[in-house]
Amino acid sequence: MIERVAILGTGLLGTSVGLALRAAGFEGSIVGWNRSRGQAETAVALGAIDSIGEDAISTAKASEVVVLAVPIFATLDLMEQLTLELGSNHLVTDVGSTKSRITQVGVEHFNQMGCAAFLPGHPMAGKERGGAELADANLFRGAVWLFTDVPGSVRSFRQIDLVKEWRQWVTVMGSKVVDIDAARHDELVAWVSHLPQFTATALSAVLEDQVGEAPELKDVGGRALREMTRLGASPFSMWRDIAHTNTDAIAAALQAIEQRLAHIRENLRTPELRDEFECANRFRKES
Amino acid sequence: MIERVAILGTGLLGTSVGLALRAAGFEGSIVGWNRSRGQAETAVALGAIDSIGEDAISTAKASEVVVLAVPIFATLDLMEQLTLELGSNHLVTDVGSTKSRITQVGVEHFNQMGCAAFLPGHPMAGKERGGAELADANLFRGAVWLFTDVPGSVRSFRQIDLVKEWRQWVTVMGSKVVDIDAARHDELVAWVSHLPQFTATALSAVLEDQVGEAPELKDVGGRALREMTRLGASPFSMWRDIAHTNTDAIAAALQAIEQRLAHIRENLRTPELRDEFECANRFRKES
Repeated sequence: MIERVAILGTGLLGTSVGLALRAAGFEGSIVGWNRSRGQAETAVALGAIDSIGEDAISTAKASEVVVLAVPIFATLDLMEQLTLELGSNHLVTDVGSTKSRITQVGVEHFNQMGCAAFLPGHPMAGKERGGAELADANLFRGAVWLFTDVPGSVRSFRQIDLVKEWRQWVTVMGSKVVDIDAARHDELVAWVSHLPQFTATALSAVLEDQVGEAPELKDVGGRALREMTRLGASPFSMWRDIAHTNTDAIAAALQAIEQRLAHIRENLRTPELRDEFECANRFRKES
Repeated sequence: MIERVAILGTGLLGTSVGLALRAAGFEGSIVGWNRSRGQAETAVALGAIDSIGEDAISTAKASEVVVLAVPIFATLDLMEQLTLELGSNHLVTDVGSTKSRITQVGVEHFNQMGCAAFLPGHPMAGKERGGAELADANLFRGAVWLFTDVPGSVRSFRQIDLVKEWRQWVTVMGSKVVDIDAARHDELVAWVSHLPQFTATALSAVLEDQVGEAPELKDVGGRALREMTRLGASPFSMWRDIAHTNTDAIAAALQAIEQRLAHIRENLRTPELRDEFECANRFRKES
């Protein structure tokens, strides 16, 4: 049984993991750490973590399962430091939005004799604004939680148990576990997650230029406009790392929608427009 | 006091108008007509209309206020027929999504000595799927209801009262009345309503081609994907008329987002990406 969890990064996701673990009945200790202490204090106040660790490394060393819940480049930095400090009784897992680079570092610096185990994870849940104060024990309920674990990882019996148990906790938190290859993961999320985000960012930016000076005009758009631009509020700090670590797949997806929009624009008065609407209708019919 | 309302077209909007009028306390008669009778029968069953008229013209003639709630070209057809049949005791209003052409026909064939009055209207409310069965008494609550009435319209005292009273009913149904010039209306909705729709259609169509064969992959996208593609279910039958009657403004809006997406694509790894996110963030901050 897992007795000590460390959450490194107590923003929206990390704090929600703590709350969800507690709501799911986890009774061990949860220690948190965050670069800026205010967010960790919020996590304590919410009951997501029991206490705040001194620093990231000592907090991780004193635990069995280490959850990395920071942006991707910060995750890669922490992985580099942790590999030197942790051993065969530790499992490190993460919640990063792109998985190829992180999984590769996991292969190179973890999952070997005498090393910490690394289980690359990605819960498909979040909000358009971050911060511990928005954390939610139900954030992962009904969501898919992807793992991009690599066959042939060398793990101790203890680590094998920790992996098995962590996957169970994810299920008890309400998520559906799906295993997928890291490269396939990054290609898939470019379409179903990154493309919707960058589309919302482009739409919001275009509208800011057009009607940003006249906020009363936004009311005219109603619910459809609010929904289509909600993700426009997403923070650059998180998406910069995603754009950097999944550039080619995102560029391909963006080019596809640019071409589709141009096709629609050129066919506003031709029967081709019907085909586009019917294709779009099919996507929604099956979902 | 308005005593007899006719609703021509008892789909989602027309039936919702009937329900909202009743919920707002309207005690006069409401007679409905729909090209396919099934939708009118649903409207009766829901209590949105008291009875079904013989045909569009006789239903309109027997009423004081005629609400046209059909697609734009059907609205234009009905306007042409009604102008020959109605007189100075009638007010005709509509709920069409583009207003330049409809308002122009209103100027040419209504609002003159001895003619029916015409008040061009556009409630910014709807759902991604149509049909009387989805009608909702609260559909217009919190929405903006635009009118593109033309100064200098010639109306009888009775018609002036009917216009005043219809605008009051719109307010009692929970909408915020906003008056705007028809050309400005069409330019504005191209940005805040039509652009979001065509963007959702393009996104849904692209995703249908990519992951349509594997519906389980849609679950991975979660709430963000569902929201960004909800409008993908919108019917071509309605949007064809919008695309035909607001082509230039929609094309300009589509070109703007195509360029923005290309700019983002070319800057996935440059600091320009920050500017795009910050611009998008501003749009959401003010709303």
